[in-house]
Amino acid sequence: MSGEREPLLARHSGRKPIATHAVRAMQSSSKLQDCLRGICTFETVKDLLPVLRWIPKYTLFDLQSDIIAGVTVALTVIPQGLAYARVAGLPPQYGLYSAFMGCFVYTILGTSKDITLGPTAIMSLMVGTFAVSPVVENATYAIVLTLMCGAVQFAMGVLNLGILVNFISYPVINAFTSAAAITIAFGQIKDLFGLKIASKDFIPLVYHTFAQLGETRVWDLTMGLCSLVLLLLLRKLRSIDWKDRPEDLPLPLANRVGRKIIWLVGIGSNAIVVIACSGIAATLISYNLDNKISITGNITGGLPPFKVPAFTLQTGNITISGTEILRDIGIGLIIVPLIGTVEAIAIGKAFARQNNYKIRPNQELLAIGIANMISCFVSSFPVTGSFSRTAVNSQSGVRTPAAGIFTGAIIIIALWFLTPWFYYIPDSALSAVIIFAVLQMVDYEIILKLWRVKKRELIPLFVTFISSLAIGIEYGILVGIGVSLLFVLHSVARPKLKFQPMSLDLHEGVMADRQKHHVDYVVISIDQGFTFPAVEYVQKAITDEMQSGVKPISVIVDCSHFSALDYTSVQGLTELISDFKRKDVCFVLACIEPGVKEDLDRANIPYILTSATVEEACTLIKNLPKANEMTVVTTKENDGPGSDEVNTSKEMGNSALNSVYVEHC
Amino acid sequence: MSGEREPLLARHSGRKPIATHAVRAMQSSSKLQDCLRGICTFETVKDLLPVLRWIPKYTLFDLQSDIIAGVTVALTVIPQGLAYARVAGLPPQYGLYSAFMGCFVYTILGTSKDITLGPTAIMSLMVGTFAVSPVVENATYAIVLTLMCGAVQFAMGVLNLGILVNFISYPVINAFTSAAAITIAFGQIKDLFGLKIASKDFIPLVYHTFAQLGETRVWDLTMGLCSLVLLLLLRKLRSIDWKDRPEDLPLPLANRVGRKIIWLVGIGSNAIVVIACSGIAATLISYNLDNKISITGNITGGLPPFKVPAFTLQTGNITISGTEILRDIGIGLIIVPLIGTVEAIAIGKAFARQNNYKIRPNQELLAIGIANMISCFVSSFPVTGSFSRTAVNSQSGVRTPAAGIFTGAIIIIALWFLTPWFYYIPDSALSAVIIFAVLQMVDYEIILKLWRVKKRELIPLFVTFISSLAIGIEYGILVGIGVSLLFVLHSVARPKLKFQPMSLDLHEGVMADRQKHHVDYVVISIDQGFTFPAVEYVQKAITDEMQSGVKPISVIVDCSHFSALDYTSVQGLTELISDFKRKDVCFVLACIEPGVKEDLDRANIPYILTSATVEEACTLIKNLPKANEMTVVTTKENDGPGSDEVNTSKEMGNSALNSVYVEHC
Repeated sequence: MSGEREPLLARHSGRKPIATHAVRAMQSSSKLQDCLRGICTFETVKDLLPVLRWIPKYTLFDLQSDIIAGVTVALTVIPQGLAYARVAGLPPQYGLYSAFMGCFVYTILGTSKDITLGPTAIMSLMVGTFAVSPVVENATYAIVLTLMCGAVQFAMGVLNLGILVNFISYPVINAFTSAAAITIAFGQIKDLFGLKIASKDFIPLVYHTFAQLGETRVWDLTMGLCSLVLLLLLRKLRSIDWKDRPEDLPLPLANRVGRKIIWLVGIGSNAIVVIACSGIAATLISYNLDNKISITGNITGGLPPFKVPAFTLQTGNITISGTEILRDIGIGLIIVPLIGTVEAIAIGKAFARQNNYKIRPNQELLAIGIANMISCFVSSFPVTGSFSRTAVNSQSGVRTPAAGIFTGAIIIIALWFLTPWFYYIPDSALSAVIIFAVLQMVDYEIILKLWRVKKRELIPLFVTFISSLAIGIEYGILVGIGVSLLFVLHSVARPKLKFQPMSLDLHEGVMADRQKHHVDYVVISIDQGFTFPAVEYVQKAITDEMQSGVKPISVIVDCSHFSALDYTSVQGLTELISDFKRKDVCFVLACIEPGVKEDLDRANIPYILTSATVEEACTLIKNLPKANEMTVVTTKENDGPGSDEVNTSKEMGNSALNSVYVEHC
Repeated sequence: MSGEREPLLARHSGRKPIATHAVRAMQSSSKLQDCLRGICTFETVKDLLPVLRWIPKYTLFDLQSDIIAGVTVALTVIPQGLAYARVAGLPPQYGLYSAFMGCFVYTILGTSKDITLGPTAIMSLMVGTFAVSPVVENATYAIVLTLMCGAVQFAMGVLNLGILVNFISYPVINAFTSAAAITIAFGQIKDLFGLKIASKDFIPLVYHTFAQLGETRVWDLTMGLCSLVLLLLLRKLRSIDWKDRPEDLPLPLANRVGRKIIWLVGIGSNAIVVIACSGIAATLISYNLDNKISITGNITGGLPPFKVPAFTLQTGNITISGTEILRDIGIGLIIVPLIGTVEAIAIGKAFARQNNYKIRPNQELLAIGIANMISCFVSSFPVTGSFSRTAVNSQSGVRTPAAGIFTGAIIIIALWFLTPWFYYIPDSALSAVIIFAVLQMVDYEIILKLWRVKKRELIPLFVTFISSLAIGIEYGILVGIGVSLLFVLHSVARPKLKFQPMSLDLHEGVMADRQKHHVDYVVISIDQGFTFPAVEYVQKAITDEMQSGVKPISVIVDCSHFSALDYTSVQGLTELISDFKRKDVCFVLACIEPGVKEDLDRANIPYILTSATVEEACTLIKNLPKANEMTVVTTKENDGPGSDEVNTSKEMGNSALNSVYVEHC
């Protein structure tokens, strides 16, 4: 059913950029204008409430598709929600509490038809890491985290701080996801083996799991392994390639219905496994074997109360205040919203690309932020876009975000009527669901790809991965971000310099061979911008290189890669110029871009020589008198940038130089 | 006397670079070779012990100059040392303990003839901030800090981590220095007024100073103000311009001797003021007015014991362990060595430039590190290069670092014989010395300069300045570094894009007017490298811009500013290429540099089109068939970078394109 018509959202979500193909340096002033122009129009309201774009054109066909997709997603999210609540360290119903409100909010605010919000493995792990309540199975910390996470995401959206997400590089995200998946999987393995281990940190967890292998509960393990195998087999049904020959098309109805059923079984594999295992567990218990199998037990049924989240927690006769809760969550207040945003936007972009529409990352941030802020009223833990369920949604032929309404409705119905049936769900079946879901997140192919494309980036990858496992995923990602930013800063601080000896006897642009030709000047090209971290290095490199020559020769610096100077780099250039001036060596800054020119003009550097091109700089050098009667051009002190007047010093003996200078300075 | 002969050190300190003017991309492999070649030669030993370069050529004239300079510096450092110890919160003699060992070590290891190591205002403030001992006037914390500071600086020198210093931009250093000077000055104003205020933080200090102005001790204040005025007048003597007419030269001997004496009085102003005030105080006390004037009182005389620094501190019956001391010093273990390094290297570079020689920053780091590590054996607090005394040294005509031996010797003599005379030194006179010294460090002209040259950098300046005063200089500098790095990262994350519509009807390089001409392609230039923080922004900017056109037209991306790609940016390009491929739009990467080319080759991106220049990319587009029969070139899967074989897809209908591709891919 998918792809039969152009999806509605794709038709309407593309916001027309204001400028057309005109020369347009993206400057802040024009941004401000855009912004002011954009306020208070119906288009802006539509941008903020994307539902207004697609609802007027909503058809019965869209409704039919969305119902099918929404129900299918609900089938996936119910077992996942129950399971992820365990990862978060909360009673199972909280997984369902987290699964419906986000869907409703996203229907109104989302820009992607495919994304479905709700509990995810990584966010659950985050809750289990940052929002550890001193009272077992109490959700106060998690709910406070949801509110704060939403508030931070909303603020990031309003302040246009989506830029922060860009500072997490692909290898770092990748390693973090894999490490999180492995941490989650190992946390579940103990349930699969029926072991009781208190520790949550990865290394002690692995240690204790192996140490206690002898205490494995065989019934739990058997059921878990069977579930895993079943999940694997059912998963295959989703992606069967029927290899139809063209002459067989169109297929008979029975054939098509049959295939649809097989596909649905594949999509609903989690639910099927959980139901089957529950049935087995119920049967075993009816035979009084209830001590053999760990089951979920009683779950509080019904909808969660809609209430303002409590900002205090009573434990014994101690009251933990909101401030203390926030302090306990600590850096989680930044990391959790950031990870949630990265996850949702990465997923949104992937599916937008696949289905040929566009998402607006900033609106996505607002949508997730508001979804979290509202979700906390129904005792949800932080939600974000789920990769597995977004895929299910897309494959089920979803056409608009309205599918979320049906997903949410089914979950509410489940909370009302189905909770008694959850009593028999075996822990090991839920563990199998989680393990199966997260192991697909581990991407080992990236190692090969990086090895082939960019070996250096294996460093942030492995640093992130190892530190995530060793000191916790919450610090691992920070370490990873730090390392990858160090790479960026290092390349800024250590530009590559190229020294090309040139002879005036040869054609321009032909490099001189030091053995054969007289070297008249050196062209130095710098492959990067020239900002403060690079200043000292470049100064030293140039001075060292020039010092090695027998006699001082002229220097042309190719500044074409400079995009703007800062005060430190202007100082650095001033020092270089005065150093070379003292040695009576001609030092020309060539290929100056307009922005750099402005910076230099404002700095009013004495003795500066600039030229528009390297060739022009050569002409300038050629026409110079001997080195010891070096020609000097100074701009007048206190000249404003607007003044073109040039003050030449007494030694000035060459009008060609002057004209070049006037022309370009 | 200065400048009469070329200074010895200048003649020998220039280490000849190994490579001459040859094309030389500075690569790590060649660095390694240099390094290996450099080990175990006498040159290397000379590099590590620069004394070996100048000692063989040491003359009697050098000795004479160095003695004069060394003694003059000692005259400055004795009052300064006594005063700075107060800033550090230690008894006065510790200022002298800190003043001699650094001089000796630097004589052997230093690469600048002018630098003189010892206590400085900022390092003293650092000690008073980070090494606050729970036992009043106990130096254990300070001495541990000295050791650790030396160790960190030494390690930075060995590991070639001088790069770290480059990440502190000029406005940040400037604002930090000014804030430190103001903090120190305000800390002394209370002594000038004779007030007793316990608080060390700037804001409470200012508040209490004004609140207690009524309790001012008039005698202290009078003596302090008189000292300040005297210092100001004497300082002027140093810089008298005698305005000699050429016909008067050479001056008669009496004239020259007279001028020398006036100059010496100027140089020794601190000592003169302190001696004069001590005399007055002694007189007053002999008239039983000793309750009117706060004086230094008894000072422990003699040399400090040469001993391994104690790593524990006994207070009452509690023993503070080394670990606890280090934990208390905390972030100071990083900040203090960093600031010390910045100070010393900045001073060294300034004087090297002025006197036309070169320092080697890495050797300086080693020298300061070792000086600190050895100084801690004589109960010194952390030392670094002092700007004021280095200036005195240089003006006194120093010729080699040997002057340090004489400075150190005088201080040792002072410790042996002069301490009883320090009894009468008034607190207010020392305060005046400090205030006078630090107020010269406040640089308000930078505000005007930045306003003129680069207004944006007023932000890091003011952020550093205000946060240094408000939350302490130790955090202020960190905040400042953070803000200035954010500027760098922001420019990396938000490159400027320029969109130039072009028509094939016009000459190449002429921009098309959208009203008059048919636009055939757009040249997009990006002003920066293309690293991971920029990927999403650039993708979005290009896609948005291209979407606004009526019909899809070809795109040429000018990649000349790319210096290397990372995995995330390769992914970004892959996505862009496949997006444009899906729309059947020709997308060419032009002006690819060799390094970028290698990255692209290794990534093996499907459908990639590259060209060496924009013109070539135009040819490529011109020779293309219609957009809907778009020509596609793919490299063979699994092709190594070495293989030049090209696999064209079935639609390929144009050999010109193929040849271009083969030539440049």
